[in-house]
Amino acid sequence: MAQAIFRSILLVSGSSVYGLLDYGDMIADTTRVSAYARALEARITPSSVVLDIGTGPGFLALLACRAGAARVYAVEPDDVIQVAREVAAANGFTDRIQFVQAVTTDVVLPERVDGIVADIRGTLPLFGRSLVSVVDARSRLLKPGGWIVPARDTIWAALASSTAAHKRIIQAWTTEYGFDLSAVRVRAANQWSRQRLDADDLLVEPQCWAVLDYDSLQGPNVSGPMNWTIEHAAVGHGFGVWFDAETAPGIGFSNSPASHERLVYGQGFFAWPDPIALLPGDEVRIHLRADLIEDDYLWGWDTQVVDGASGRAKAAYRQSSWLAAQPNRERLRKRADTFVPRLNEAARIDRCILDLMHQRMPSGEIATQILAAFPSSFKNWDAALTRVGDLSDRYSE
Amino acid sequence: MAQAIFRSILLVSGSSVYGLLDYGDMIADTTRVSAYARALEARITPSSVVLDIGTGPGFLALLACRAGAARVYAVEPDDVIQVAREVAAANGFTDRIQFVQAVTTDVVLPERVDGIVADIRGTLPLFGRSLVSVVDARSRLLKPGGWIVPARDTIWAALASSTAAHKRIIQAWTTEYGFDLSAVRVRAANQWSRQRLDADDLLVEPQCWAVLDYDSLQGPNVSGPMNWTIEHAAVGHGFGVWFDAETAPGIGFSNSPASHERLVYGQGFFAWPDPIALLPGDEVRIHLRADLIEDDYLWGWDTQVVDGASGRAKAAYRQSSWLAAQPNRERLRKRADTFVPRLNEAARIDRCILDLMHQRMPSGEIATQILAAFPSSFKNWDAALTRVGDLSDRYSE
Repeated sequence: MAQAIFRSILLVSGSSVYGLLDYGDMIADTTRVSAYARALEARITPSSVVLDIGTGPGFLALLACRAGAARVYAVEPDDVIQVAREVAAANGFTDRIQFVQAVTTDVVLPERVDGIVADIRGTLPLFGRSLVSVVDARSRLLKPGGWIVPARDTIWAALASSTAAHKRIIQAWTTEYGFDLSAVRVRAANQWSRQRLDADDLLVEPQCWAVLDYDSLQGPNVSGPMNWTIEHAAVGHGFGVWFDAETAPGIGFSNSPASHERLVYGQGFFAWPDPIALLPGDEVRIHLRADLIEDDYLWGWDTQVVDGASGRAKAAYRQSSWLAAQPNRERLRKRADTFVPRLNEAARIDRCILDLMHQRMPSGEIATQILAAFPSSFKNWDAALTRVGDLSDRYSE
Repeated sequence: MAQAIFRSILLVSGSSVYGLLDYGDMIADTTRVSAYARALEARITPSSVVLDIGTGPGFLALLACRAGAARVYAVEPDDVIQVAREVAAANGFTDRIQFVQAVTTDVVLPERVDGIVADIRGTLPLFGRSLVSVVDARSRLLKPGGWIVPARDTIWAALASSTAAHKRIIQAWTTEYGFDLSAVRVRAANQWSRQRLDADDLLVEPQCWAVLDYDSLQGPNVSGPMNWTIEHAAVGHGFGVWFDAETAPGIGFSNSPASHERLVYGQGFFAWPDPIALLPGDEVRIHLRADLIEDDYLWGWDTQVVDGASGRAKAAYRQSSWLAAQPNRERLRKRADTFVPRLNEAARIDRCILDLMHQRMPSGEIATQILAAFPSSFKNWDAALTRVGDLSDRYSE
């Protein structure tokens, strides 16, 4: 029985536990925390009602309370919100913070808020449905003229030389073992990854790729060109992308490798398939785009290197996270509109459970019935109840 | 329409793409690869039939073929198996490797194999259902007297001093911002994490916690004590745990921080809540246990530090990943046997889809019908088809 309770708790705890180290890294980044704290102090007045999108263990909600907020709606889909509740209580903010376990796009609030605070970025602000959440919250939950922290993210890029990053991403697949692993290498070369770049790795002056002004941003997609003329001969391995945040006017931080500060965010590195020998006068043209498809971005980056002396193309690549995917024909076939599904055993079991739930039967009785109906699928009643619990979790109000 | 196809491919691609960097790190670890390659060369004869559990992009299957295997069954649940198929073809092994997309515990093979190869560890060999998979494959799929690579993992532990690791895991939550974050800190202190320890970090001679002999291992759970007498005064922050692998008799590698090699696996670090000042003659007693609950291990570690001079207890901790969980009462309530579920909108939609699938209706028509029946839940027919596709993916044969 103790084992059954352990199992239930572990099942509902999900993978959130593994995020505590990440949250710790975030609050240990004093540059980041200070930029948020000062922005909230500048924005919040004693009457302020604030929405905290993705509060995690609740740290930005605490800062908002300390800055004097009258009320904070702290929204977080993950079970880490349980910890945030305890933290709020320990700091005497239970009356001022209202926790909502959900994604904000599903949330309806009893009032419009004066301001929104959100650090829901990954390595870059274009991360999952983060921008969709901010745009949605601004239009539905924020008072007209209300503020958003951060106010603006500016995304920068620069050509980079990083033998280590290139080796890790691409050269690992050009093995010394004598196998042809090009099928893996081509996919590895078509996904960007988080790496740490140093000031010395940058070959050119950074250029701005995009400005995300959260007061006016409309959609989550970004696309734009960048061009550099090479001044010093070097081997280029791709380009780094990062952002500077303005949490409130005049307050912020920079993730630039050139800033010599190592913020928690890191940089995105977009590797070229092969190192390119760049010479003074060469021109490098990059077009970078990010399109949100459902929950994830599809990233594309086209590179042209033009020889400064002859004007001829030295290298040209079209890369895309599209080419990193591993399309599974069998599963694609099952998604076609012409497909006629034939239900498997899991479907027969879950259909039966849903029918019994529809009859308002208690979970324990449902478990007894499905154990009798599908004896080869369950080791015992406990296992059947776990399956019913999985469906209750997803399907009950 | 291009967008619809992109979306389908991204939906079926899952998160596997993000593992390519990890797979690259694994094959870039030449100590690891060499220990596997030499073990396979020692074990495989021209008539050998081999099972590769968790082949990923297929690298160990390639090594088995090169070592001369007649046939390899390469099993992998993730879509990365598509890449493995291409890799096998590029190296001329299509006829010798048969790929099966599944977890091995669900697999039935047409014959028993002569040997099993598997590197399905995380930081430690006790990782998810890895040991269950090996024990199951040995009893169902391996010939009597067959071999397993690795043959044996020996798990070691040593007390460690690591200000950096302790700061990252625990001190982050003792903030300089003046908030009480003990609710987070207590959870952070009750989960172990992967850290990199150096030889200098170890305060004592490593002790063996467990030997996993894959020829005779029965269950996935491990439990046992370790005791050290301190020789030199030092501040202890917890203990590190790692394994040495014997891939075949006389062949292997060591993850020990003392070996000065940095293998891909790293070490597990079990932090104490507070640093402990250890003096010569002090005795440190640790009991470490790991119990598999469904898909994850519950880890527990009890520490007693006894003062060498007085024989009195200086410190005593009982830590457990159980205490790192964030139990969600609402979701636990939904898993009780007395709970009477009331179906939500998602349940009404999926029940309707399952009923129409049961009638053998094509997915496109099902999408049309659920769009008509639940107009507020879907933006358009495309969105309805995506939902039908999700269910086809999970529920059709």
